[in-house]
Amino acid sequence: MGERLATQDVVTIFFSLGVLLAAARVLGECARRFNQPTVLGEILAGVVLGPTVIGAAAPELIQWLFPRQGSVALVLDGLVTVAIALFLLVAGMEVDLSAFWRQGRAAFTVSLGGLVLPFALGLTAAFIAPEVLGRQEGASRAVFALFFATALSISALPVIARVLMDLNIYRSDLGMIVIAAAVFNDLTGWMIFAVILGLLGAGSGSVATTILVTVGFAAAVLTVGRWLIHRSLPWIHAHASWPGGVLGFALALGLLSAGFTEWIGVHAVFGAFLMGTAIGDSSHLREHTRTIIHQFVSFIFAPLFFASIGLRFDFLASFDWGITLAVLLIGGTGKIVGGGLGALWGGIARREAWAIGFAMNIHGAMEIILGLLALQSGLIGQPMFVAIVVMALVTPLVCGAAMRQLLRLKNPRRLDRFLSAKAFAQDLKAVTSGEAIRDLARLAAATAGLDEQSVASAVLEREAQGATGIGENVAVPHARIDGLKQPVVAVGISEGGIDFDAPDGEPARLIFLLLTPRDDDGAQLEILADIARKFGDDAFRARAVQVNSFTEFLALLRTFPEQG
Amino acid sequence: MGERLATQDVVTIFFSLGVLLAAARVLGECARRFNQPTVLGEILAGVVLGPTVIGAAAPELIQWLFPRQGSVALVLDGLVTVAIALFLLVAGMEVDLSAFWRQGRAAFTVSLGGLVLPFALGLTAAFIAPEVLGRQEGASRAVFALFFATALSISALPVIARVLMDLNIYRSDLGMIVIAAAVFNDLTGWMIFAVILGLLGAGSGSVATTILVTVGFAAAVLTVGRWLIHRSLPWIHAHASWPGGVLGFALALGLLSAGFTEWIGVHAVFGAFLMGTAIGDSSHLREHTRTIIHQFVSFIFAPLFFASIGLRFDFLASFDWGITLAVLLIGGTGKIVGGGLGALWGGIARREAWAIGFAMNIHGAMEIILGLLALQSGLIGQPMFVAIVVMALVTPLVCGAAMRQLLRLKNPRRLDRFLSAKAFAQDLKAVTSGEAIRDLARLAAATAGLDEQSVASAVLEREAQGATGIGENVAVPHARIDGLKQPVVAVGISEGGIDFDAPDGEPARLIFLLLTPRDDDGAQLEILADIARKFGDDAFRARAVQVNSFTEFLALLRTFPEQG
Repeated sequence: MGERLATQDVVTIFFSLGVLLAAARVLGECARRFNQPTVLGEILAGVVLGPTVIGAAAPELIQWLFPRQGSVALVLDGLVTVAIALFLLVAGMEVDLSAFWRQGRAAFTVSLGGLVLPFALGLTAAFIAPEVLGRQEGASRAVFALFFATALSISALPVIARVLMDLNIYRSDLGMIVIAAAVFNDLTGWMIFAVILGLLGAGSGSVATTILVTVGFAAAVLTVGRWLIHRSLPWIHAHASWPGGVLGFALALGLLSAGFTEWIGVHAVFGAFLMGTAIGDSSHLREHTRTIIHQFVSFIFAPLFFASIGLRFDFLASFDWGITLAVLLIGGTGKIVGGGLGALWGGIARREAWAIGFAMNIHGAMEIILGLLALQSGLIGQPMFVAIVVMALVTPLVCGAAMRQLLRLKNPRRLDRFLSAKAFAQDLKAVTSGEAIRDLARLAAATAGLDEQSVASAVLEREAQGATGIGENVAVPHARIDGLKQPVVAVGISEGGIDFDAPDGEPARLIFLLLTPRDDDGAQLEILADIARKFGDDAFRARAVQVNSFTEFLALLRTFPEQG
Repeated sequence: MGERLATQDVVTIFFSLGVLLAAARVLGECARRFNQPTVLGEILAGVVLGPTVIGAAAPELIQWLFPRQGSVALVLDGLVTVAIALFLLVAGMEVDLSAFWRQGRAAFTVSLGGLVLPFALGLTAAFIAPEVLGRQEGASRAVFALFFATALSISALPVIARVLMDLNIYRSDLGMIVIAAAVFNDLTGWMIFAVILGLLGAGSGSVATTILVTVGFAAAVLTVGRWLIHRSLPWIHAHASWPGGVLGFALALGLLSAGFTEWIGVHAVFGAFLMGTAIGDSSHLREHTRTIIHQFVSFIFAPLFFASIGLRFDFLASFDWGITLAVLLIGGTGKIVGGGLGALWGGIARREAWAIGFAMNIHGAMEIILGLLALQSGLIGQPMFVAIVVMALVTPLVCGAAMRQLLRLKNPRRLDRFLSAKAFAQDLKAVTSGEAIRDLARLAAATAGLDEQSVASAVLEREAQGATGIGENVAVPHARIDGLKQPVVAVGISEGGIDFDAPDGEPARLIFLLLTPRDDDGAQLEILADIARKFGDDAFRARAVQVNSFTEFLALLRTFPEQG
């Protein structure tokens, strides 16, 4: 039956995976809470579990849980290697090749500017001062410079997409240009990086052969492979079980492609990324398949991988201000100026052009992976790796904020941000609309520190001008209040229903009392629209009136549109 | 940075996982095609890749791909161990504890009968003739007998559920009683098995302690743990990202619980199963979360696990007619008679009672896992393991067929079974309904080997009695034909639309010409209902009229209701 793990090793593996996953998810969520990238929390989880924090307090426990030698170390390394390849497969699936062609000239000039300038700056700097930037003893000056230039030029498609979505401009012309340019940068960057790995020559055969095979493989996967996959998918849908057939197909192709690129001397992640691009490009790939792979990999495999990075390195000890600032400055200048000039050249107006430049400077998990591979190949030292990690963590925030300023954006406000347990009446006893308004006004006033009487009369006054039942058992009494800092919503659920004179004649069972600042024109409209959109869904409303607590109500809102 | 895998090992791991997954999925689909359990194909994939087939032709390739010693063997064993635990987590999530209480007396008597009789028979047989049944040298007679009795008494909830769904009686009273009884059997069986593993004493501490801790842990998870999870889920939905929060929560709990049970000397799968039960029982768990975990695990992890079983053993060499027949006979008698008598005692009518008995005798992947653990613990030999695998593979088919006979069931016929590329007109040129019918009649007649003229006139005659446009751009001209063996459907897509006098006045763009055997009353109605249900969906219809080939049309039908 072959060599097997000892029971004790199996115990360790389950505990270390469980602890790593739990810590990564919890700190990932915390990071998200403070508007930081999830990956920051995930890496932090590894740091906390590693030698610096818990390892210092309970070294034996941590050595038992995450041994550095032996079977368990090997198995965990294997799992993490597979996890990172699957993460790149998913990242590749998000690349939309056709988007690049659709966006035309501006996408081309932006991607060219965002690629050439940082590459040139990085190459020059690394050639002039390789030691300052932390080239490793014995690593080739040319290869090191190539790597440094590539690390600054590559973009982080998934992170850029998420920032654009947060800013609500993902589907705008500007968003599409940025995405298209990032797709091109990613593909080119990874190709160059594959060549660098070929130059390092870990594979079999000469460097020239490795590079030739790499480029040939990439070309084959992106043309013939892409076409074959596109042709195969309908056949698989028609003749295999759903979605098992296509899931197995995508994962098996990704694993085999990863194995192939690792074999030719380029890292497995490159093959996985390429195959992901080829698979994701097919219009026959169903959204459901994408969702399953994406969510399982992003929420299970990716946290494990990033936490394991945190475990492996002592980030504080390796942090170097000089190298970090150099990376941030050279990379930032190259990307922002390059991308911005490219956009101006492509005919984009000035403010938008600079916003595009900032968008191109958003880095992320891709650069961390790139840096890790370079570190493992002995090309760079730990301080440079840490600098790259810092760049990946800092740029989304800084550049996102800069874009918001430049484009003068505001996020549409959503209902769930303005609710609180104190302003939630699960079982509203009121019988008339006036009573309901007075009850909810009391809760809202207490939450916001306002005078109960004046709130109630403001809302009642508004109600007198025209009833606020909007139909389908929902009513939205509201008022604008002087001196209010931010909107407040009190929610009441009435079992018997209250007449709010709705157009459909139905009594209101969900009543949202909405107070907004006097001078904030948008807030009222945006929150009203959010209420109408969500509670217009019959199944959702049916569940909403049956919740047993404020937490359940919030849970429902936050998981819309899934009501299962 | 700790011990890491060599590049060569990483290459092997990706290739072996890719090959194993691809082979398992392909053969799994083939098995499904011939109405066999998927797991049969998955195990077969391992056998084909193993020493018996490809290993005999290219021993070096297979030894390279699936080495039995060294780092790669350890990593693959680690991955498979995690895969099996996750598979049991999912199996546990499918257990619906409350179903047992809802079904009342009959569920109790059935589960009692289906548990006690096979257990008693197995215990007796194993005590009388342990050597004949393949007890391993040195294994305790009592423990062996306990194991044999348990392996025969446990049921395979997921497989039973799938057979009931295939027979279309999952939601019937009978189906619910069977499921409830199987839930009870599974839980009891796993508890007994955990005790057996405790008796084998792989863990730390004495046997009595192990058993006590096991039972205590199970009780704690199923009561306090279940309650805590149920209370936590809304909070996670409300405060963590969706669905990442709950995915990480479920997987981390499953891994930790698996680690704990492995640590106390019971196998990891038991802990995963228990935690799955506790998580799956919460009504706050959303369908979407279930789907992601279920599909990723069933279609990626499970095939890897079952194929690895096929790889490890030489099934042909270990096959023993005597032991296999003994297992099938003793197990079958116990389950069928026990379950049947239990049902009669619970007040179920005779034919239904025996159908329930057969349903209780459906075994599956759970028994294979149980057998594997017993084999690895040195309790049973390979012939007994193979006999258990055969039982798991044979019983779903035989018992499903017996139930169909006893309940006189027929599956509702679905449109997709009666289509063919030859009877598909992607671009129907006809302008009038008469022309369309004649065109499609020609295709249908050619496919079924009928006379074109008589088919056309039969359908036209029916059409004359009343038009067959059913609205929403769909028309279903049809006729019953003498001597036809099974239904034939010809499909035409008309770009311009053809007037079929539909109630909504819209022209038909999708025309289904439906021929059914003269004496088959159900066929016409069932296929018509299937057409109406699927093509009543606007988004689905919109995609259907735009397909470019028959394969794409079939792909669409087979992946309904997902149109993404």
